Amino acid sequence: MSGVLYGVGLGPGDPELITLRAYRLISGADVVAYPALAGGDSFARSIAADMIPEGTREIVMDVPMTTAREPAQAAYDLGAAEIAAVLEAGTDVVCLCEGDPFFYGSFMYLYARLNDRFEVQVVPGVTSITTCAARAGMPLAARNERLTVLPGPLPEDELRLRIDGAESVAIMKVGRHLAKIRGVIDDLGLTDQAAYVERASLPDEVVCRLRDAPEKAPYFSMILLTKGADPWL
Amino acid sequence: MSGVLYGVGLGPGDPELITLRAYRLISGADVVAYPALAGGDSFARSIAADMIPEGTREIVMDVPMTTAREPAQAAYDLGAAEIAAVLEAGTDVVCLCEGDPFFYGSFMYLYARLNDRFEVQVVPGVTSITTCAARAGMPLAARNERLTVLPGPLPEDELRLRIDGAESVAIMKVGRHLAKIRGVIDDLGLTDQAAYVERASLPDEVVCRLRDAPEKAPYFSMILLTKGADPWL
Repeated sequence: MSGVLYGVGLGPGDPELITLRAYRLISGADVVAYPALAGGDSFARSIAADMIPEGTREIVMDVPMTTAREPAQAAYDLGAAEIAAVLEAGTDVVCLCEGDPFFYGSFMYLYARLNDRFEVQVVPGVTSITTCAARAGMPLAARNERLTVLPGPLPEDELRLRIDGAESVAIMKVGRHLAKIRGVIDDLGLTDQAAYVERASLPDEVVCRLRDAPEKAPYFSMILLTKGADPWL
Repeated sequence: MSGVLYGVGLGPGDPELITLRAYRLISGADVVAYPALAGGDSFARSIAADMIPEGTREIVMDVPMTTAREPAQAAYDLGAAEIAAVLEAGTDVVCLCEGDPFFYGSFMYLYARLNDRFEVQVVPGVTSITTCAARAGMPLAARNERLTVLPGPLPEDELRLRIDGAESVAIMKVGRHLAKIRGVIDDLGLTDQAAYVERASLPDEVVCRLRDAPEKAPYFSMILLTKGADPWL
């Protein structure tokens, strides 16, 4: 009998936003796996750090810092091979994923590589979009409103088109795209309806109106935008 | 000192998908509040049932079953007044919300009524969209993909326009709109890329391809659609 691969969402960063199931799986894990960026610390591991039992084996996927696809894919190839060997030996592997595994998460690369040969169970997690909405006091969508989620790296014209046609908008991965996104929202006359949230739920969280946002944004930052003045009233 | 109103997301239905914070708040609550539909059972309460301490006071907001706005708003007016009285007496109130409080949740009606006068803390929860994706084995969005969330009650032409312009799509609250939505997706030639999920994470969950979906869908049902054949590869 092969082991089961669990792709476990850890939520946005505050360990208290981990689900009971994720907690149970992590605290009982023989083997955990997670990505780490360019030899640095793993954000996913840091969220779950206090729940990982002593002596648990840790498989680290060292993902290079580049927008090129091949080096990252090679890291997941290596990680998938190491995980497959553990699963073949009959041991479960708990893969730690910040946020939700299937919502802009790197777990889908492991899923694509291992789902044909092994049982994979995905445990959903709290996403950054509802966490940012909670922290900004800004309901995301009500009744029959549409919600559009846009990655910040999209080209300016694409962002303009999609924001213009949207009702509620969450723009993820703002980071170094902040000035571009701000320009688009300003052009559309929507700056007063926009909130900025950085590192939601973490101790160094920033929540403010977009017009008061800092000049520089980290990767884990988001802009929320609702078109109505009080769309939930 | 007034009490604090907590709007607590409970996730999609499986009590194990409740967060550690929600569990802590509910199991320590003196007063909980929740909506119930037309004198029936409360879905939110059923998710958290085993965590509510004995002797906890329960404020039930009896929301009539109608698409008209006024009767429901009257129910939230009444509930807000009852909750306000508890908060004024210095006791916290934990409001139970299926899914996430700010993602198509009725908590926003209480938030709008009470946020000016009391401290309100919103605890995000696992949403149905990532739960359905996890259950269907269908990553929602990767890299720079856009995700569009559409409520099923939208008019047919609006759905057609929005699905046609989208990349990944989650259609919520399918229910009695199933035939209409199916027709639109068929017309667009996208049926083979669509999954149907009903009551995700609950014991009577249904997960299948859209072409194999039943004729009748409950309110808590969803259609997921990705445009690429293997968008996560």
